[in-house]
Amino acid sequence: MSKTDKRCPVADTAALIGSKWVLLILRDLAEGTKRFGELEKSLEISPRTLSARLDELEQAGVVARQCYAEVPPRVEYSLTEKGRALIPIVEAMRAYGKEWL
Amino acid sequence: MSKTDKRCPVADTAALIGSKWVLLILRDLAEGTKRFGELEKSLEISPRTLSARLDELEQAGVVARQCYAEVPPRVEYSLTEKGRALIPIVEAMRAYGKEWL
Repeated sequence: MSKTDKRCPVADTAALIGSKWVLLILRDLAEGTKRFGELEKSLEISPRTLSARLDELEQAGVVARQCYAEVPPRVEYSLTEKGRALIPIVEAMRAYGKEWL
Repeated sequence: MSKTDKRCPVADTAALIGSKWVLLILRDLAEGTKRFGELEKSLEISPRTLSARLDELEQAGVVARQCYAEVPPRVEYSLTEKGRALIPIVEAMRAYGKEWL
């Protein structure tokens, strides 16, 4: 009977992006590819938490991780097609925040 | 330097709606006024958690609470204008979930 029993597309999306950090990671990656350290600095997030959220997003197919064999190693993150499809949600949030908050 | 220091409208909106339960409450209230018990049943949420989230949304000016002096007392929740302005975000999430999840 519950909407969470039926497949509800809003609930499915909420399970994916219903966290403050995930929304802010998406906001930053919507601008383009970022290094781990750039995200860490922009979000003022602990490396441990950032790493956990990025791993989840990579497993969900939303974020792609690219390692470059440099010294020191360079790791970059970008949105996949499934991730870029979330940008309209981030933009709807931006429009709301500008008007109401 | 950080985007969280500057007023960022995405971060402000994420602080308001960046929780799974809040997004699902908004989804249900987007359909119209609901009683406490209807939300509780739809979301399969504990009364304590639902009450806390509704209080926060009421304090944020997103949800209006209406009490009717009946026996038993009836309490109904609906979106304010500031709350209805969040519906496009919920609809963007629905469109994403339908296509990608």
